[in-house]
Amino acid sequence: MKKFSSFIDLVRQRQSVRSYHTEIPVPRDTIERCLEAARLAPSACNAQPWKFVVVDDPDLKNALAEATQDRLIPLNHFTKQAPVHIVVVREKANLTSGIGQVLKDKEYPLIDIGIAVEHLCLQAVEEGLGTCILGWFKEKKVKKLLGIPPGKRVELIITIGYPATDQIREKKRKPLEDISSFNQYS
Amino acid sequence: MKKFSSFIDLVRQRQSVRSYHTEIPVPRDTIERCLEAARLAPSACNAQPWKFVVVDDPDLKNALAEATQDRLIPLNHFTKQAPVHIVVVREKANLTSGIGQVLKDKEYPLIDIGIAVEHLCLQAVEEGLGTCILGWFKEKKVKKLLGIPPGKRVELIITIGYPATDQIREKKRKPLEDISSFNQYS
Repeated sequence: MKKFSSFIDLVRQRQSVRSYHTEIPVPRDTIERCLEAARLAPSACNAQPWKFVVVDDPDLKNALAEATQDRLIPLNHFTKQAPVHIVVVREKANLTSGIGQVLKDKEYPLIDIGIAVEHLCLQAVEEGLGTCILGWFKEKKVKKLLGIPPGKRVELIITIGYPATDQIREKKRKPLEDISSFNQYS
Repeated sequence: MKKFSSFIDLVRQRQSVRSYHTEIPVPRDTIERCLEAARLAPSACNAQPWKFVVVDDPDLKNALAEATQDRLIPLNHFTKQAPVHIVVVREKANLTSGIGQVLKDKEYPLIDIGIAVEHLCLQAVEEGLGTCILGWFKEKKVKKLLGIPPGKRVELIITIGYPATDQIREKKRKPLEDISSFNQYS
């Protein structure tokens, strides 16, 4: 377990990892601690509208990795390196969250999934793991591989493994004054 | 600053706070550290599709609190107690995230906003603050109060203040086996 002096220190070391140690497996109890961090995440009306399918079977994982790649667009070339993929399925929200969704025209479950997935990824950093959140993949193929009902949506896939390098890149972000203001939108 | 032994310890102490010390203001530099944690959040194609409007002017904050309440449904009765509200505006994603959104029928900016808002709330816990994420409010009124262009969406409002009690409630969550499985959806 890595130790961090503060939450912001943990956040600074969390980055998209696209290069993994292919030969070092990730123990299941480590994965389960990452899932536990996601499990505890807050959600609108406590709906917890998520399921996490952990794929650590090498052949299945490789088939899944292929479904994240595209012959035309050179995306996600690295996914086969990661020994574990976690597929995030959106589940039905509960009644109160569903009513709010309709009345306020808001997709709360997507916001909820963002929160839970980030809990998972931050726990992974503490475990010495690297992750990359993918939003681009062949959803139908993913569903078929894992027996996910056709009516469900697969929102994200998280690749997980030990990073091939411990180099932390500098984050490129908009300055604070561009994304925030006081008492008036600007 | 509170110290946490681990990320999961921080997560366990993060809860929706609906009762605040009304007379203890929150310093702006504390709020800025929370914004900084949000600023560093990852997002699809690094689009950073968010703006945070911090409302700490008491009259404006009270008007905003009224816009989170409903005469018919007894929701958000506590919002006036919180000395600070942060209004989260969804901004246009960049081109690459936008293309992915269309081709894959995915609302990446909502997932992104979930991640950034949770960074903010977790930093707030470390600062000794309590937060509550609200998804239910009169959006038009909120936009009018803060000069937010009519075409934009206000996705969330976060109430912030020092909690009136330091009691940590037990989290009610689905068991891990209900939200996760290995190598097959179940």
